[in-house]
Amino acid sequence: MQPAELISEDEFLYSRIAERFEKQMHAGILKAGDKLISLRALSKEQGVSLSTAFKAYIELENKGYIEARPKSGYFVKFSKGQAPMEPVTPKLVSRAQKTDVEEMISIVYKTLKAEGVVRLSLASPSAELIPEAKLNKAMMEALRQDMASCTQYEEIQGNVKLRKQIAKHAFNWNGNITEDEVVTTQGCMEALVFCLRAVTEPGDTVAIESPAYFGIFTIMKSLGLKVIEIPVHSTNGTDLEYLEQVLQTEPVKACLFVPTFCNPAGALLSDERKKQLVELLAEKNIPLIEDDIYGEMYFGKKRPRTCKSYDKKGLVMLCSSVSKTLAPGYRVGWCIPGRFIEKVIHLKLSHTVSAATPTQAAIANFFETGRYDLHTRKLRKALHTQSLRYIQAISEHFPEDTKISRPQGGYVLWIELNMKVNAFELFEKAILEKVTFAPGQIFSTDGRFSNYARISFGAPFTSKIDDSLKKLGRLVREMSV
Amino acid sequence: MQPAELISEDEFLYSRIAERFEKQMHAGILKAGDKLISLRALSKEQGVSLSTAFKAYIELENKGYIEARPKSGYFVKFSKGQAPMEPVTPKLVSRAQKTDVEEMISIVYKTLKAEGVVRLSLASPSAELIPEAKLNKAMMEALRQDMASCTQYEEIQGNVKLRKQIAKHAFNWNGNITEDEVVTTQGCMEALVFCLRAVTEPGDTVAIESPAYFGIFTIMKSLGLKVIEIPVHSTNGTDLEYLEQVLQTEPVKACLFVPTFCNPAGALLSDERKKQLVELLAEKNIPLIEDDIYGEMYFGKKRPRTCKSYDKKGLVMLCSSVSKTLAPGYRVGWCIPGRFIEKVIHLKLSHTVSAATPTQAAIANFFETGRYDLHTRKLRKALHTQSLRYIQAISEHFPEDTKISRPQGGYVLWIELNMKVNAFELFEKAILEKVTFAPGQIFSTDGRFSNYARISFGAPFTSKIDDSLKKLGRLVREMSV
Repeated sequence: MQPAELISEDEFLYSRIAERFEKQMHAGILKAGDKLISLRALSKEQGVSLSTAFKAYIELENKGYIEARPKSGYFVKFSKGQAPMEPVTPKLVSRAQKTDVEEMISIVYKTLKAEGVVRLSLASPSAELIPEAKLNKAMMEALRQDMASCTQYEEIQGNVKLRKQIAKHAFNWNGNITEDEVVTTQGCMEALVFCLRAVTEPGDTVAIESPAYFGIFTIMKSLGLKVIEIPVHSTNGTDLEYLEQVLQTEPVKACLFVPTFCNPAGALLSDERKKQLVELLAEKNIPLIEDDIYGEMYFGKKRPRTCKSYDKKGLVMLCSSVSKTLAPGYRVGWCIPGRFIEKVIHLKLSHTVSAATPTQAAIANFFETGRYDLHTRKLRKALHTQSLRYIQAISEHFPEDTKISRPQGGYVLWIELNMKVNAFELFEKAILEKVTFAPGQIFSTDGRFSNYARISFGAPFTSKIDDSLKKLGRLVREMSV
Repeated sequence: MQPAELISEDEFLYSRIAERFEKQMHAGILKAGDKLISLRALSKEQGVSLSTAFKAYIELENKGYIEARPKSGYFVKFSKGQAPMEPVTPKLVSRAQKTDVEEMISIVYKTLKAEGVVRLSLASPSAELIPEAKLNKAMMEALRQDMASCTQYEEIQGNVKLRKQIAKHAFNWNGNITEDEVVTTQGCMEALVFCLRAVTEPGDTVAIESPAYFGIFTIMKSLGLKVIEIPVHSTNGTDLEYLEQVLQTEPVKACLFVPTFCNPAGALLSDERKKQLVELLAEKNIPLIEDDIYGEMYFGKKRPRTCKSYDKKGLVMLCSSVSKTLAPGYRVGWCIPGRFIEKVIHLKLSHTVSAATPTQAAIANFFETGRYDLHTRKLRKALHTQSLRYIQAISEHFPEDTKISRPQGGYVLWIELNMKVNAFELFEKAILEKVTFAPGQIFSTDGRFSNYARISFGAPFTSKIDDSLKKLGRLVREMSV
């Protein structure tokens, strides 16, 4: 097993230098238009190589904070005052109801994979960010290392090397897990389905967030479950006070939340509130299915904790996969279902016997060789940079009353538009101009986010992206009058 | 696309010569102990090379028909009179009941993968028969040929190249299918689950065969379905007359049968009876889920037709996979669900979004390059040979009153033992001697086949296998008094 690659000294230096400038800009000490000191001066001042100084400025330029003017130097672009407000999710009283919002989802879904369209709609990394060659290598190594070239059935519970790696990575979120507590699945969605089936029956009520990823509604309907929607705010996450009230009056059998960078609101539930949530539900013996699929895509220094890390009673069922970090096509996911593990294993056995062997083995290899950690580190940096560029471009191109979320991780921005704008109509107009995004209506059971839009920053920021956002902004303006 | 490899002239010749001898032995013209003509004489008589004559005798020797005595020549081993009778499945009146035979299955299942045990229990090809190197090559080619190295989501309906290949192969069973009628799945079990969910609700009644593969009971229970068991005879398949009676009195919502080399009885429903079955069910608008997973493993000259090939109303839902022919670990299966295709696609979307991309692509490549056909041809020959050796060995080592099925394809022998023998107890004793097989009790909902055993001939016949059958035979004898 090769050691995980260490972060170079140099990387720390240029990041820290860039960060210092960022702080000054946020504090208003450096303003838009101010000229930054020259590379040579910076290098002297900080006692670093010219190369390191250059990297720091490139970092700031990539993030849209500064711009290089030829023969002039580096100038501050960022302006604190212009930062748009974050959107607000209204409180709502929602009776449990069977889901039925499929037609819109269907239409939007078909365009998600449309050809020749600029897609601001996929909440996952675009192909350019995926280390394909290394993954192919991992597959070859996996096939070679297996006695039967991965042609035989894998263990029902899942590839043991993969489960060991998942257990090992749990330390990053303060988890204390062994491989015996992990069950692999064909992607995160299957993990959610098994967990739901382990703790509910058709007709039961499940509490979910609102807005929520539309795939959740599809699952709920497919399993004959009713949903109660709990508001989630892009600033601080699930409304726990509202949840507490609902638990007193509704027969909630289980909760399914995405406490870390939920889709689409992008909220991060603080460690403290995660603990609060776990204790609130544990008191009532209600299982919590935690979708942690975006957990690795944090922009800060430290990997956020999970609710699972506060789980004392085995009621928290954590689900995740490599679909958002690495290779959705591999369908490699897992769950750590606490006390319900035997039920989950049995459900897996009754459905697919076991998950595919080559793909599990390839991903296990990718983890073991340290490639996964190296890759996610690069991906986080890229996403952070991209998020800032997109936010900036949207601020520029969209009307002033547009509100934009400030996610601390993940792939998506949650945009609140003028009340007059119908997001689905905007979507239909945008498709004609070869731009797609996800209109707010599909993120609830009753289409209530009719003036919201989800824009993904999974693709590297290019002039084409900029143009697309410009087009969208124009359409929004036209529809706002 | 490379052309499928042609069968060599030579292969036809030696096979035909061997067959002629087989016919003579079955007709009693050649008897046990008779000396066959020398290789040189055969070569002269048939006008073939010595090499071809030699291959013909090797074929007969492999199949256990003849033996070579050093310095003497070739002698007939086969004796028509000794051929054991085939087992009989008793008629039974069976009320619909929720399945509950899991404990035994669980115990047996755990040993199926036990180390250091001679397994006469797996109804699939043993690893030696799998062309691993070629499959690895197919995987590499598939990764190389895909624009994103198979890291992205596959089409929901399934890899189009794979679906085209499946449609193409349907011609072999007189099917007239396009790729639009095919949906890929993660193995055959998932196909069965989706098909069942498309046409039933929890609480419905489904007619299945008896004896039946125990995995079916697991699925039924998991979906909350009741079963009615229809006897299947190893000689001629499902009892259609019995089925017709049942349909008149019980609310059968759907049927799930394995009309071609069912597991464990090994029966082949004739073309005519398949047509009869389809028409019987079509008249009552009852969907027929046809598990065709063993369809390619025929020992005769021609691939048997399917029920699907007689389907006029779109009520027959054919399911299959490469798990029995090639690589169970790849979890690549499919269904051709007739009029229920949209429902099935939707179920697939709500469960796994799409099936894994690399594995589908690799199998598609394996089909396209003709490797699949070449492989299945070799596999059929090997299995046919193996079936005959196993039958012979069991005839020798087991008591005279043992009845053995004569499958025309597939992987398993269905053995009826003396009434005094409890197959599960036999199983427990056999495990202590490091031999496993599948005891009859697990092939029904109420353990009625208590003196039956399923022995797989998926592994090449060796002296180790022979010893294991000898041990089993001894145990049976001991338990028969």
